Amino acid sequence: MGALDDGQFDANVAETAIVRGGGGSGAMEIEDAVRILLIGLGENLEREGLRKTPLRVAKAFREGTRGYGQKVKDILQGALFPEAGFDHVTGQAGGTGGLVVVRDINLFSYCESCLLPFSIRCHIGYVTSGKRVVGLSKLSRVADIFAKRLQEPQRLADELSHALQNSFTPAGVSVILYCWHIQFPEVVKCDQIPWYPSESGIQGWLQTSVCSRTGVFKDKNSSFWEEFKLLLKFRGASFTLGNSRGTLAHAWCPSRSLDLPEGNGRISSLLVGAQSEMLAAVTSIIWSLGEDPFRKELVGTPARYVHWLMKFKKSILEMKNNGFLLHKTDPHESSNGHVHIADEMSTELNLPFCAQCEHHLLPFHGVVHVGYFYDGEKKAIDRPALQSMVQFFGCKLQVQERLTKQIAQEVDSVTGKGVMVVVEANHICMISRGIEKTGSSTATIAVTGKFSSDASAKALFLEAISRNAASGGFF
Amino acid sequence: MGALDDGQFDANVAETAIVRGGGGSGAMEIEDAVRILLIGLGENLEREGLRKTPLRVAKAFREGTRGYGQKVKDILQGALFPEAGFDHVTGQAGGTGGLVVVRDINLFSYCESCLLPFSIRCHIGYVTSGKRVVGLSKLSRVADIFAKRLQEPQRLADELSHALQNSFTPAGVSVILYCWHIQFPEVVKCDQIPWYPSESGIQGWLQTSVCSRTGVFKDKNSSFWEEFKLLLKFRGASFTLGNSRGTLAHAWCPSRSLDLPEGNGRISSLLVGAQSEMLAAVTSIIWSLGEDPFRKELVGTPARYVHWLMKFKKSILEMKNNGFLLHKTDPHESSNGHVHIADEMSTELNLPFCAQCEHHLLPFHGVVHVGYFYDGEKKAIDRPALQSMVQFFGCKLQVQERLTKQIAQEVDSVTGKGVMVVVEANHICMISRGIEKTGSSTATIAVTGKFSSDASAKALFLEAISRNAASGGFF
Repeated sequence: MGALDDGQFDANVAETAIVRGGGGSGAMEIEDAVRILLIGLGENLEREGLRKTPLRVAKAFREGTRGYGQKVKDILQGALFPEAGFDHVTGQAGGTGGLVVVRDINLFSYCESCLLPFSIRCHIGYVTSGKRVVGLSKLSRVADIFAKRLQEPQRLADELSHALQNSFTPAGVSVILYCWHIQFPEVVKCDQIPWYPSESGIQGWLQTSVCSRTGVFKDKNSSFWEEFKLLLKFRGASFTLGNSRGTLAHAWCPSRSLDLPEGNGRISSLLVGAQSEMLAAVTSIIWSLGEDPFRKELVGTPARYVHWLMKFKKSILEMKNNGFLLHKTDPHESSNGHVHIADEMSTELNLPFCAQCEHHLLPFHGVVHVGYFYDGEKKAIDRPALQSMVQFFGCKLQVQERLTKQIAQEVDSVTGKGVMVVVEANHICMISRGIEKTGSSTATIAVTGKFSSDASAKALFLEAISRNAASGGFF
Repeated sequence: MGALDDGQFDANVAETAIVRGGGGSGAMEIEDAVRILLIGLGENLEREGLRKTPLRVAKAFREGTRGYGQKVKDILQGALFPEAGFDHVTGQAGGTGGLVVVRDINLFSYCESCLLPFSIRCHIGYVTSGKRVVGLSKLSRVADIFAKRLQEPQRLADELSHALQNSFTPAGVSVILYCWHIQFPEVVKCDQIPWYPSESGIQGWLQTSVCSRTGVFKDKNSSFWEEFKLLLKFRGASFTLGNSRGTLAHAWCPSRSLDLPEGNGRISSLLVGAQSEMLAAVTSIIWSLGEDPFRKELVGTPARYVHWLMKFKKSILEMKNNGFLLHKTDPHESSNGHVHIADEMSTELNLPFCAQCEHHLLPFHGVVHVGYFYDGEKKAIDRPALQSMVQFFGCKLQVQERLTKQIAQEVDSVTGKGVMVVVEANHICMISRGIEKTGSSTATIAVTGKFSSDASAKALFLEAISRNAASGGFF
């Protein structure tokens, strides 16, 4: 557990390091910074899967923060259209006083506290004035400018609403954002081994909702704010203003809990010696993206990001050596999730995991389903043992195909009669970056022994997963 | 109804025209072609909302067909990773024989039969071989290369599966696509006035599903195809191979029904004289996009696209002059959808419409909700009259804000006591083009008279829509 040795994190390291790293010409290249991170993780830069990782990570960071280089007026130029209101009628419509809403715009942004992407569902409303309307798709494009920066939900909402208000001066702008942030496992249950995802920690992402209003949407004598919320309700989105400003800042990013009194000292003790170079590298990345690493919200970010990365350090051999396979139990004593399909086949469904994609240094997470044949005279493997195994193979830089194979191989080494492993995952690298395929998911299968020859055994196991999914499985 | 005058469409017009239009240097610019289309629609090119439409349409067409200029090998280069299979175990996993699946990739493509975009949900599976896996996000990128062309579902599936098979030679590739195509109103109910959307025609898009398989997925002795389908079932997608090849070609794009025996002569009689220039313009666009307008699947495309555009010709004054407001009925006799909230307020919910976005020449469609106060001694407006009105204002190049205003103004001119109109829509221009915000929707509101001053009346009406939406409204 070298990564977690005692030691003290010096807040000045970042400052010192950026000068060191940047030299006279400013910050080092992002690619070089990523190489330092990989070395800090104990990885071999020449390994095939990692050779282009610095390039990929740099590209993803640049694309994900391209908003720094974009201007609202470039988007809106030529997209304001004259639309008269009513000619002979009292009321609000078209270019004067009518409410215009765009709902359910999917975006993603980078969390300024930990540098991980978070998902956003954005709703924008404005009330027309000056006999002008703005092209509807431009609202989404402007939102994207502010999302593609290091952000925090409330600031994103505020920047977006004020930018729209100032750029084409409607009677008012209203923005509601629903945001989802991947959990930091140890925050959910501090009594667990810190870097292992807990079941609840992975299945549910942290959610928050924020709003920002200008003009008539703030006016107590106007009903526009209520109407805006009702229009969202048509689509099933009900917004309650539960999060007042201020309380959110700490509550939102789970890594911020490391800064709280009860977390004090933890982050310091986790980041030491060798990691000061990693901290300098992250500081340099922030600098390269066009941000000021000394902005107060960003000061702790390198430490939090390095802390997150170190969860996925190459190997935690103690765990394997202690033998997560020693604990076996009789199948009839099994706990929840354990299904006994046939005398000799045992299945464990929905074992959660969180791994780090070695191509993009972004998390992928989901569930593992394991089916295996075993000797009826011996005992089946108990669920906690399988869960430890899944965590062991998940907690490193991985690709899903290899993870699937490694779990199957490990179970097979104990049971020896045939194993089938299905891994279902969501890859953050699929929803963020240029590709932005929200909602997509992946599945991989590995089979050994009896499962490779017996199609009916495979089918039986897949049907078990299918039934479980239908009754409210992971996704 | 000048647009529908008798006449004969000469299939040679297109050929003649492209030579004429293109001159020595090839096809005319897409922008010029779009100008010809707008003139053919009777529009004023100098109108503010249309001034940049040629530019926008050209940009959307180029972005939407950028796949012609992209190569699979450029995407996959550097994205093949060595992953060994099992070391000492018999089975399939990792780089050898393991099934890898990416589910729910949202794409859109342009229909080669009518040039309108269609939506795609794409599922891809492959079986590894040669100890190599491909970066998961690359499957989505390769799919996009083939989607960003003039396509038809089965060809898209075939091109994708074969491209993957040939590029990194896995043991087999399987592709399943679910595709949705906007309805052509007159195809749904031929007894209706041809260019008006019918209720059923707008609410439900045409759906089809296709598959394409190579290698082990075609092998009857292998269970990979069944496993692939089961993995999709986990996510609620059940695929039945209902559409065999051949039968689909006509069934898919609704505009193709114009080519069928019962449609024969209709398209010829609809496109005449002035429209030959529009046909030439569309032929030229196809040429500019890098396609061959004489490829047999594309020969009828210009005629179908022009026919679609002509549905949205600037004005159909006869209809208004015939007076869609003459038919009034007692509110107590009203038909389905009519809710009588208060003595003096009447509401009609979910009146369907389909309009053409004047900024992008792409459809937007949805429902209109109308609430109005009326003199209890007079009669309320009956639903068919409101539906005609909605269709009248929808059937032209529009923006949603203006459509909302015009409907409110028209109802107000009859009732004079206050009107509230809510238009909810999906804009194809939001899901296609560069922005690709699948799932987003828009809402606009116009209010007159009593509704502008009485917040509780507004709230009452919005709640009525909300209740209706909760019980299975339009979206």
